[in-house]
Amino acid sequence: MSVTAAKGFQAAGIAAGIKENGNPDLALVVNRGPRLAAAGVFTSNRVKAAPVLWSEQVLRGGQVSAVVLNSGGANACTGPAGFQDTHATAEKVAEVLGHSAGEVAVASTGLIGIRLPMDKLLPGVETAAAALSQHGGEKAAIAIKTTDTVHKTAVAEGDGWTVGGMAKGAGMLAPGLATMLVVLTTDADVDSAELDTALRAATRTTFDRVDSDGCMSTNDTVLLLASGASEVVPDTAAFHEAVRAVCDDLAQQLIRDAEGASKDIRIEVVGAASEDDAVEVGRSIARNNLLKCAVHGEDPNWGRVLSAIGTTSAAFEPDQLNVAINGVWVCKGGQVGEDRDLVDMRYREVRITADLAAGQESAVIWANDLTADYVHENSAYSS
Amino acid sequence: MSVTAAKGFQAAGIAAGIKENGNPDLALVVNRGPRLAAAGVFTSNRVKAAPVLWSEQVLRGGQVSAVVLNSGGANACTGPAGFQDTHATAEKVAEVLGHSAGEVAVASTGLIGIRLPMDKLLPGVETAAAALSQHGGEKAAIAIKTTDTVHKTAVAEGDGWTVGGMAKGAGMLAPGLATMLVVLTTDADVDSAELDTALRAATRTTFDRVDSDGCMSTNDTVLLLASGASEVVPDTAAFHEAVRAVCDDLAQQLIRDAEGASKDIRIEVVGAASEDDAVEVGRSIARNNLLKCAVHGEDPNWGRVLSAIGTTSAAFEPDQLNVAINGVWVCKGGQVGEDRDLVDMRYREVRITADLAAGQESAVIWANDLTADYVHENSAYSS
Repeated sequence: MSVTAAKGFQAAGIAAGIKENGNPDLALVVNRGPRLAAAGVFTSNRVKAAPVLWSEQVLRGGQVSAVVLNSGGANACTGPAGFQDTHATAEKVAEVLGHSAGEVAVASTGLIGIRLPMDKLLPGVETAAAALSQHGGEKAAIAIKTTDTVHKTAVAEGDGWTVGGMAKGAGMLAPGLATMLVVLTTDADVDSAELDTALRAATRTTFDRVDSDGCMSTNDTVLLLASGASEVVPDTAAFHEAVRAVCDDLAQQLIRDAEGASKDIRIEVVGAASEDDAVEVGRSIARNNLLKCAVHGEDPNWGRVLSAIGTTSAAFEPDQLNVAINGVWVCKGGQVGEDRDLVDMRYREVRITADLAAGQESAVIWANDLTADYVHENSAYSS
Repeated sequence: MSVTAAKGFQAAGIAAGIKENGNPDLALVVNRGPRLAAAGVFTSNRVKAAPVLWSEQVLRGGQVSAVVLNSGGANACTGPAGFQDTHATAEKVAEVLGHSAGEVAVASTGLIGIRLPMDKLLPGVETAAAALSQHGGEKAAIAIKTTDTVHKTAVAEGDGWTVGGMAKGAGMLAPGLATMLVVLTTDADVDSAELDTALRAATRTTFDRVDSDGCMSTNDTVLLLASGASEVVPDTAAFHEAVRAVCDDLAQQLIRDAEGASKDIRIEVVGAASEDDAVEVGRSIARNNLLKCAVHGEDPNWGRVLSAIGTTSAAFEPDQLNVAINGVWVCKGGQVGEDRDLVDMRYREVRITADLAAGQESAVIWANDLTADYVHENSAYSS
């Protein structure tokens, strides 16, 4: 159901010819109102793609009538000409739909440093607009895939309203958002300020805690659009939870489809003096290549967890650290604990718990293992 | 020539049976004086192995008469009992040589979290002491290898004095020193304060700028011992340069022998507002797994360099960044520059230059590519 699960939205996904292999590469999501409220969260990378720079401007107005997304090219590091391409894309969407370009968000994904083939993209906008449908959510989700093996959608139902969404992302998954494009829609009657609050709260503990490969993208964009078409003003807590649930569902799908990964690693840091400490330690563990290799080899190598914790500035004493792998406390008090042979790592999900014994705070970070397939996929991406 | 190139030193390397495969695993380096001056630099990891905790104490006195090193076990995360093992090892060396245990430094390398087989190590100390020789430097260098494919030694000659050294390290190579054990010796007549100054200056721009895999070890130790046996007080600048040259030589050997690597990546950051900025940017590039994969695939994917720079807090403007790969400026002004097809990446050394266009400072960081062999070697290390 994707972005068209909520009333008031139409979508389309088509092949415009941006991708040389002829796969779908252009998606359009249109908000038919009555509201056009919107909020957005973008990459914290200081090298931002042209569509990010454009859409940040659009979102400042709090109104989005349409989102146009392309795969097959990131339009990042393309200079003023690349920004002009984004602007022209928004203008084309506005012209075709009879909207204002200042309310058209743009998102792109693909290789950095190449210009988009505008001679294909602009006619594609017309094709996509002609294909708009309230059943077009799946096709839109398919058209934004890059190295994703499956398209990703999620839906949460409220009391008379709905939140739905689509996501793409498979590599360059890291904090400050992953290489992800996400569009969420709702027919709840919510203004842009409330959307912003709900979206920031949701991404902080979902997409922002996915750290598949430690690499932060130039293009990350997460948008939340409200049509108000249900004519229901939702309970605030219930709405926040629905947005969080859809984000969490999509974030899990990103981790499970990460490039070349054979394991999903759930890193829970407990006993931290602060949530920031817990996140810092979780990220350090998530990014430790040696540990990621060990998990791939189903080796409960807790020493690599401790050496990763030791590089952080979090509050802890080395001789009070405890580490469990899949429920077995292989490290207690900073030294060998339960028998590591008890750890069963055959399944895709591997759970690492790091207890800092320094407080009551906690956080969960999701990562993937490091595999020969990851190396293979990423050593030939642009050639 | 290794640690016995300088007069006044003896060394030995033997197989004590710590490694189950019977390879050499115990090294002893003895300073016969007349001076016993010493300085040390240790890992900045907060989870420190027992021998690091011990040797830090010893070095506070500025006197080291002997260094005992073992491979086959890191003696890290082994609790008070592990510290006791280190203490007993130092006491044994002191007893056999007739020294004070407080002047015996200890270093260990191998798997974290397992106790050392003291029933083999302590008799091994006697065997090593009996084998001490002024020609024993090579054997000592061989005995400290773990996954190293070759042993590593270096020598620099001064005006009547010599600096020599040995190193081991092949994985877990990252700042705050790598998983490295290094012993440097000199027969120059230098006191411990001057040794400390020379050693810190040298490691700051050599070992500290090796970032093979972003993983910081619990055991890193670099020691510099002076016997004064040449009876020559060296020119300070010449001595500093000799220590730096030996450290640089050994650091290059570490990079060239990094686990599973097929490329050595020399990352030079220029045009930085400060040296700290240059180092931060260099490290961010060095640790970007996607870029490391691209280098492995001989793909001049400069977009990944820019996305790595974008995650830092260094002073720069995205539209003024320039990147060269092997001398070809593939990115100019934050966008596509010279033809990427001109970049020849067939050889082992790959040179990346990142120009921040923000000042006059620079730094060089050395890294390796990410390969399937790295994954393979590190997914089965402890099993």
